[in-house]
Amino acid sequence: MPVHGRHVVFAPTSGPPNIMDTVRGKRAGTFEDYCNIIKLCQNHEVIHVLGGCVEPQDMPVQFRHLETTRAMLNLSDKIPLVFARGPGQNADNFEMLRIAYGLTHEEFISRPYTSTIINTNSPLQLDIPMANGIMDYAAAGQVSIITPFTLAGAMAPVTIAGALTLAHAEALAGLTLAQIVRAGAPIIYGSFTSNVDMKSGSPAFGTPEYTKAAIGAGQLARHIGVPWRSSNATASNSPDAQAAYESQMSLWGALMGGCNFVLHAAGWLEGGLTTSYEKFMIDLEMLQMFAETFQPVGATAEDLAKDAIAEVGAGGHFFGCAHTMARYRTAFYAPLVSDWQNFGQWADSGAKTATDRAATLWQQSLERYVPPERDPAISEQLDDFVARRTAAGGAPPVS
Amino acid sequence: MPVHGRHVVFAPTSGPPNIMDTVRGKRAGTFEDYCNIIKLCQNHEVIHVLGGCVEPQDMPVQFRHLETTRAMLNLSDKIPLVFARGPGQNADNFEMLRIAYGLTHEEFISRPYTSTIINTNSPLQLDIPMANGIMDYAAAGQVSIITPFTLAGAMAPVTIAGALTLAHAEALAGLTLAQIVRAGAPIIYGSFTSNVDMKSGSPAFGTPEYTKAAIGAGQLARHIGVPWRSSNATASNSPDAQAAYESQMSLWGALMGGCNFVLHAAGWLEGGLTTSYEKFMIDLEMLQMFAETFQPVGATAEDLAKDAIAEVGAGGHFFGCAHTMARYRTAFYAPLVSDWQNFGQWADSGAKTATDRAATLWQQSLERYVPPERDPAISEQLDDFVARRTAAGGAPPVS
Repeated sequence: MPVHGRHVVFAPTSGPPNIMDTVRGKRAGTFEDYCNIIKLCQNHEVIHVLGGCVEPQDMPVQFRHLETTRAMLNLSDKIPLVFARGPGQNADNFEMLRIAYGLTHEEFISRPYTSTIINTNSPLQLDIPMANGIMDYAAAGQVSIITPFTLAGAMAPVTIAGALTLAHAEALAGLTLAQIVRAGAPIIYGSFTSNVDMKSGSPAFGTPEYTKAAIGAGQLARHIGVPWRSSNATASNSPDAQAAYESQMSLWGALMGGCNFVLHAAGWLEGGLTTSYEKFMIDLEMLQMFAETFQPVGATAEDLAKDAIAEVGAGGHFFGCAHTMARYRTAFYAPLVSDWQNFGQWADSGAKTATDRAATLWQQSLERYVPPERDPAISEQLDDFVARRTAAGGAPPVS
Repeated sequence: MPVHGRHVVFAPTSGPPNIMDTVRGKRAGTFEDYCNIIKLCQNHEVIHVLGGCVEPQDMPVQFRHLETTRAMLNLSDKIPLVFARGPGQNADNFEMLRIAYGLTHEEFISRPYTSTIINTNSPLQLDIPMANGIMDYAAAGQVSIITPFTLAGAMAPVTIAGALTLAHAEALAGLTLAQIVRAGAPIIYGSFTSNVDMKSGSPAFGTPEYTKAAIGAGQLARHIGVPWRSSNATASNSPDAQAAYESQMSLWGALMGGCNFVLHAAGWLEGGLTTSYEKFMIDLEMLQMFAETFQPVGATAEDLAKDAIAEVGAGGHFFGCAHTMARYRTAFYAPLVSDWQNFGQWADSGAKTATDRAATLWQQSLERYVPPERDPAISEQLDDFVARRTAAGGAPPVS
């Protein structure tokens, strides 16, 4: 999975404590929800890398990393992203990945198999678990995505240039720590600069300032020659039109800005406090549309279609001409959530909004989920490891 | 109102036969609705030019141009855009503009005061009222926006390059006709290339193919050195998340493509068959966000805020520092439709979606509408003209 140059990978939203769907409403995240979001990631090709999805609050914190990492490895064959919550959990996670991929320790540390999110504590602080994370991941040759979360007007200067200046200093500090531990340690320059509503102090996302800050952060990452991570974010409390237009603003900021890694690419709602099943599906649609939009446009003589235009002539139509017949099956993007029926057909089929349709789609997707094939011997080793570490009391997060 | 280079103007949706709002549902457009949309255009600064808004089907066609043009001139001081539906109506419209602006005939034809949309009848046809429109507008020194409507896979080749080739040929034919009538006649290169769903034949808008075709059309317009018109379009039947993400895809295609004139910038729904009050407000939000996004980012020493960062130091906050205090009032975009409250506040205030809030906003906007000041003598002349032309039977559209 290349994460540089013109490549971009999409990872699901990571870390919201809550989950929401239009059937059951908003509630605390559970391990079942966590697994469901991993299954949705596995089912949909536009998601390339896994993530924190939602915090399984029904799982004790000292065992949570064991269960979530095992679930990622069992439920999907996509690349895991794990949290760095202290050296004990980091060591457990690395060992589980090593087992899952059948690697020696030396093989594991020879190249990246996973990544983690490092958030600075703005302004100008890096707390202990995050610093430990950078050091552990660098030593293990795994990827730190070093991401200052700078809200202009609150924990960062009120100007975009000022917020980016602060974020850049913080990112450089983290990147430098990784290189001190191990020269050449794989890192990604993360950015998450937005603004607050100056009347209420509420954070806002997918705003004009957010989009401009994203493009600026991408320039800073390229300036120092490292891959760049951005996000798909919105402040909306509902998977509605606001969620769609704010998210798309942030996605254009990321993708026109040359982003290599989009975290929270699907599912983020409510400023990152909730993962939404419906928003996940709406985001998938947007991600797929971007993937198609960024495919080159053909401009051969055949693509220009002068012969077909001459053949059809004035007042004709192109439905049946040879140029169309040869291409119609794959000519256009086929939507996931969008409904292109005419009004009468749409009304007859229930006048469903995009959010209504997304609710049907995630349920259908979960129903058709099939786990990837796994060597039973490896699953057994993973289970043994989790059982042993659980019996030993797990590893409480460091905070 | 400059329409060239880096300038861009936004005009409302023009021509849908139907109107929709969440209070009364979908219905045939009326003159009251037409006037309401003009009032919304007048109230919101991000709309620069007027348009067809919605077809007032309760108004007989031979008088409709008289009533709609008078309404534009009375209800707003923004620049009218009128339809070209035959020489009789064109002459009436020009005369009303001449009266409203207190111009002699020579003054009126000396520079643009209005524009019209010319659609070709793809493939490769220009029908009689449209050809008349080009000729009448060129002779009067007014602007023809010559816009082939090429749906790839239906009335245009199935490839993007092919659909653009056809559209370019048709636009060049129209532009040439204008220049034959009057060398230097003001024209805008319009584009409206999208694709159909090849399974159903339904037109789709705001698709990846639409966005790429928009960017390509902008390149073709610049290639021949003329201003470029694009659109804000969606196939959604509801002012929902699909409407937002498809519209924003089309807006990015227009605005990243260097568009000078965005028709249908606010209000378009259902593939252009309906004008939606709620979608109008959601579009205004997106347009305002774009306008703010395209403002330059300051990068002076003051903007970089190194002194503020040093002053606040590690672990502090920027809420009260001098750098913030000097800027906070105007630092960030203030939203129209978006709700940035936290979940609890949002739930307590009714858990309204963006569409719900848009419904409140258009009603509030209409309540606070105030007509622009007009010289009563001119209004009287306009009324006299309309009365005289109405008594004479109006001017039936040519079709």
